Amino acid sequence: MFQFIKKDKNSKARLGIVRTDHGTIESPFFMPVGTNATVKSLSFEDLLEFDAQIVLSNTYHLYLRPGLEVIEHAGGLHKFMSWDRPVLTDSGGYQIFSLTKFRKLDDNGVEFRSHLDGSTCYLTPEDVIKIEHVLGADMIMPLDECAPYPCQRKEAEESVARTTHWARRSREYFLRNPLKTHRQFLFGIVQGATFKDLREQSAEEILAIGFDGYAIGGVSVGEPVQEMFKTLDWVMPLLPPDQPRYFMGIGLPDQIVKAVGEGIDMFDTCIPTRYGRHGTAFTKKGKVVLRNAEYKKDLAPIDESCACFVCRKYTRSYLRHLANLKEVLGLKLISYHNVYFYVSLMRQIRQAIQEDRYAEFQNEFLKTYGSTL
Amino acid sequence: MFQFIKKDKNSKARLGIVRTDHGTIESPFFMPVGTNATVKSLSFEDLLEFDAQIVLSNTYHLYLRPGLEVIEHAGGLHKFMSWDRPVLTDSGGYQIFSLTKFRKLDDNGVEFRSHLDGSTCYLTPEDVIKIEHVLGADMIMPLDECAPYPCQRKEAEESVARTTHWARRSREYFLRNPLKTHRQFLFGIVQGATFKDLREQSAEEILAIGFDGYAIGGVSVGEPVQEMFKTLDWVMPLLPPDQPRYFMGIGLPDQIVKAVGEGIDMFDTCIPTRYGRHGTAFTKKGKVVLRNAEYKKDLAPIDESCACFVCRKYTRSYLRHLANLKEVLGLKLISYHNVYFYVSLMRQIRQAIQEDRYAEFQNEFLKTYGSTL
Repeated sequence: MFQFIKKDKNSKARLGIVRTDHGTIESPFFMPVGTNATVKSLSFEDLLEFDAQIVLSNTYHLYLRPGLEVIEHAGGLHKFMSWDRPVLTDSGGYQIFSLTKFRKLDDNGVEFRSHLDGSTCYLTPEDVIKIEHVLGADMIMPLDECAPYPCQRKEAEESVARTTHWARRSREYFLRNPLKTHRQFLFGIVQGATFKDLREQSAEEILAIGFDGYAIGGVSVGEPVQEMFKTLDWVMPLLPPDQPRYFMGIGLPDQIVKAVGEGIDMFDTCIPTRYGRHGTAFTKKGKVVLRNAEYKKDLAPIDESCACFVCRKYTRSYLRHLANLKEVLGLKLISYHNVYFYVSLMRQIRQAIQEDRYAEFQNEFLKTYGSTL
Repeated sequence: MFQFIKKDKNSKARLGIVRTDHGTIESPFFMPVGTNATVKSLSFEDLLEFDAQIVLSNTYHLYLRPGLEVIEHAGGLHKFMSWDRPVLTDSGGYQIFSLTKFRKLDDNGVEFRSHLDGSTCYLTPEDVIKIEHVLGADMIMPLDECAPYPCQRKEAEESVARTTHWARRSREYFLRNPLKTHRQFLFGIVQGATFKDLREQSAEEILAIGFDGYAIGGVSVGEPVQEMFKTLDWVMPLLPPDQPRYFMGIGLPDQIVKAVGEGIDMFDTCIPTRYGRHGTAFTKKGKVVLRNAEYKKDLAPIDESCACFVCRKYTRSYLRHLANLKEVLGLKLISYHNVYFYVSLMRQIRQAIQEDRYAEFQNEFLKTYGSTL
């Protein structure tokens, strides 16, 4: 599934290729988030226009709406949403812990109330794999328990134990029930909150079970960014070099650049579309809060150096007008620019690794961006 | 400005060309409504994709937001919104009467409170032309008084008198102050509510002043559709054949088809985008309310016979899912289909007139659509 191509000479950044039955993906890569089978404000035509390689979608949301039978009837998620490139689905573990008001865990699974209509659902690790079989994503995540921040050691210990137990059951079910239409790859998720020994223990247990790739979960849940990067220091040395590494839910552009320098291959975040919907654009020089009064008559594009069609055609003045009136076109154009920014940042990252100048690229990027990382 | 090409042999439908400095428009035509300098949910790229010839925008809204100085700084509305094809701006008369809670009229103008922030504004007919000079649309409308439905005869008489008085002042100011950058055309608006003699009086007075084209206003304000078409019976015979005729704010597809058969050349309505945002699509066979449960697993497109990219790519099942979650992509895709439907309906209308089979086309369309008109 994963072909390691090369490591950058002066950093831990790495270049690779992920091969799926829906196409190959060059790593490191970013997955635009399509929670409800749509990347918010964008069309799939937009994503193809700037050559997004893959999208991520949410098992939890799709299970509730439109419901499995609708997606099964369409022939799976790819066909349902008319996207024939690779897809990754998360397990819903994170959403159950962050979106549902009521949940009750036991070793067998999790009971929760839908954030949409309050109805009660119960899912086992096997149920989640079954659901992800129906969705038919190329890469899938098992049910895990994501501990909050801050959390007590005992809570973190329990979440590691349960995550390992569920990971084993998921893997076993997955191996016994392969999908017939195309290959799926199952990732393991490392938990352990902000405790070094628990992170190491979780990594060892998950590695012992054996997965197609490894994810670091339970990050970006409110902890200081230094804590988030400590997790990488602890876990990365334990992960095998010939399998992909996924830093779940990360992050801001400078965080991605830094994490690539630590050897991460895969990222997902709703930041570019969420910020876009709130009128904030990303550039190499940092954020541009387009709703600010200073842009009222600014006839420059969001970013002079950006090649996206929004920057070639529309002014900050016009985008600010649309954003202030919450006009859909404004949210779409700024989201488009932002996702384009992320996708092309990853392209520049791969180019820099290819040319063995990633350390230099990282320093230069963080400096220009005004990052404190 | 208007070149009359031909009349259909068996109906009053007519073919023409409107020439502006931003391009020519084949009539009869439909103007997608871009209230806030954006056709809701769509991009200008979308409009070019299906060759929309012109858009309409709203003086009232643009005057309040982003404000004239912003659009003047950008070099006019075309440049502000990056659309180099023709534009028509309405005067704000209708919006002042339908959107503002407080307004006070005198012969000199109208005082009203902004629906956005409650601030008080006062506009004379000359002010409105000045504003439309700054916006720089190719076709512009003068300030008029739009009587409500129902209204007393006295109220309608006053609105006719004031509309004529304001029309004369608008025309005089317009002639004395031509725009330097490109040609603008000023339309006259016929009022008179649902009173035959007042409609005739208004038409005669407006024609006596003399305008580049003539609009029938004060329609689609809540009156029964039969009343709306009676207005056409009364006014159309009075209008000169060599100038364009605009039925303001009309309408549903079958209303447009019928009005073309009465000799109307120009239409605008926010129906395709408004219905699109609420999950309803237009087809030759009538409306498809995509949010209905019957479409849950429907893998057909909105309309099998439609050539738009939405119908070539997306299923009713997927569109229903997006519409039910109010996902922006759903609103956009359905709006796209609807505006495409309107624009291509006008293309079919012109083709039918060209081939002298409009009466037949109209009968066939109304029958298939299930219209009671």
